[in-house]
Amino acid sequence: MLPERVAIVEVGPRDGFQMEKTFLPTDLKVEVIDLLTKAGLAKIEATSFVSPTVIPQMADAPEVMARIRRARGTVYSVLVPNVKGAERAVAAKADGIRLVVCATEAYNQRNVGMSVAESMALIPAIKAAAGAIPVEVVIGLSFGCPLEGAVPEDRVVGLARRIAGMGIPEISIADSIGIAHPVQVRAMVERLGRELPGLQFSLHIHDTRGLGLANALAAMEAGIDTFDSGLGGLGGCPVFPGATGNIATEDLVNMCAEMGIETGVDLVPVREASRRIAEFLGRALPSRVLAVGTREELYRRIEKPAVQA
Amino acid sequence: MLPERVAIVEVGPRDGFQMEKTFLPTDLKVEVIDLLTKAGLAKIEATSFVSPTVIPQMADAPEVMARIRRARGTVYSVLVPNVKGAERAVAAKADGIRLVVCATEAYNQRNVGMSVAESMALIPAIKAAAGAIPVEVVIGLSFGCPLEGAVPEDRVVGLARRIAGMGIPEISIADSIGIAHPVQVRAMVERLGRELPGLQFSLHIHDTRGLGLANALAAMEAGIDTFDSGLGGLGGCPVFPGATGNIATEDLVNMCAEMGIETGVDLVPVREASRRIAEFLGRALPSRVLAVGTREELYRRIEKPAVQA
Repeated sequence: MLPERVAIVEVGPRDGFQMEKTFLPTDLKVEVIDLLTKAGLAKIEATSFVSPTVIPQMADAPEVMARIRRARGTVYSVLVPNVKGAERAVAAKADGIRLVVCATEAYNQRNVGMSVAESMALIPAIKAAAGAIPVEVVIGLSFGCPLEGAVPEDRVVGLARRIAGMGIPEISIADSIGIAHPVQVRAMVERLGRELPGLQFSLHIHDTRGLGLANALAAMEAGIDTFDSGLGGLGGCPVFPGATGNIATEDLVNMCAEMGIETGVDLVPVREASRRIAEFLGRALPSRVLAVGTREELYRRIEKPAVQA
Repeated sequence: MLPERVAIVEVGPRDGFQMEKTFLPTDLKVEVIDLLTKAGLAKIEATSFVSPTVIPQMADAPEVMARIRRARGTVYSVLVPNVKGAERAVAAKADGIRLVVCATEAYNQRNVGMSVAESMALIPAIKAAAGAIPVEVVIGLSFGCPLEGAVPEDRVVGLARRIAGMGIPEISIADSIGIAHPVQVRAMVERLGRELPGLQFSLHIHDTRGLGLANALAAMEAGIDTFDSGLGGLGGCPVFPGATGNIATEDLVNMCAEMGIETGVDLVPVREASRRIAEFLGRALPSRVLAVGTREELYRRIEKPAVQA
């Protein structure tokens, strides 16, 4: 049973941009986010408040947040690694704060230099610093970890339960490295829905092995109606060279549209934004719909009038 | 309910190669097919017996068929457009013959210069020419046509019924241009299974808008257990510039393996074959698993021993 409506969280300006070695000019970042706003995306992960030493690409986070033109009804969310980041996010008037807790010790150490317990312990402090701004927790590496291998479903469900117990109703289950497959996704989503009903789960998918949209389909069938995706399929994976990034917003929106699922997203400005980035980076982005168009656009290229059988 | 086993028909040496403008040397074609045999593929569409004026890439079809090393248990199938092609296929000792009938008049005219009725009328003659060699019919453009637009499900089901009535138990439903979406695939497969039980349907999918594996997943859930795919995701679409080709054998085999579905295919020689082609063509092929590896291979790159939580 597919959902009637799917909400898309555009994470390209954070997850996609942070993988680029070339600094994307602040002007371009703002232009892209403004186009994404025009496209009608419900939530945009606009930047992250991290140390510029660790991720130089995000050094202009306050400026980006100050310069984007905000639309009523769009949530401009940011990623933070700690309380200081949350304070900076509040100062920048973010509408939402996201914090990542990895499902494995090894990756959490690598990611933020803390144990999972230390990251979990941050949640109340970040919630306090955020005040009225909703805090969402992302459980990273939920489907497998490049450092520890397979991740038990129990561990993810256990973390989700504890996070929910801290008053966090929105939890994103992240396949941060694109290691999940549809049967695994379905099992995870069904179990979370059964054991933790009433929470708002979303799914963050990477397309490393080409399974991105198949995983999204399996998740929708199992009850997920909120997905992260990135314009153009930007991004990559810090641990697997040659990996593509997030599922492309264009491809996900198109799949939903063709299946009769509303997203409220207009692909024209999304693709304009992707083309601006592709132009700047001087390379094609992975999105197939960006490259060839939607079904309706392909049909519109029909050369001849219909011939009757 | 997913199948326990999926059979894969490797169509790269025909559907993939025919899209390449540069003539692939016969030596390379033979080497690639021999590698695919080594990979354990149950059926390989090795070439097509068409006019070399129309498709120069297939001019060496008899030589390819004569030089490949055949394995017991592997079916070496060929595509033919007419009775003359079938006779040449018999002379070349093909194990199987495939004939395409398009679901739309406009595309069938463009493809073979005949009406759909004329193509359908060929089936008994091709069957007679084939003798003991099994003939399979591919219904092309089953999910949409670049010349006529949407294709009614009724038309495909009606053609399948008439083809079955001619004593053809194997029918391939082809999304020749990659226009299908999962809901459409599921509806088509469920209807064919309901109305024409006992036939052996397979699905031929292109990945034009990135929906290839999602469509394969939907088809499996609806009861299909045989798929065409092409090594490396070779190929394209004669009508949509920028389109990618068949779903990649590597990506489909990997998806099945991860979901616990047997294919009997060893990816090592498939990827060796893809790399040989990529090397010759001087460009990367679309397959993601070819680029980054399987889940197990990604895990094997684990840098550090597991850290206990």
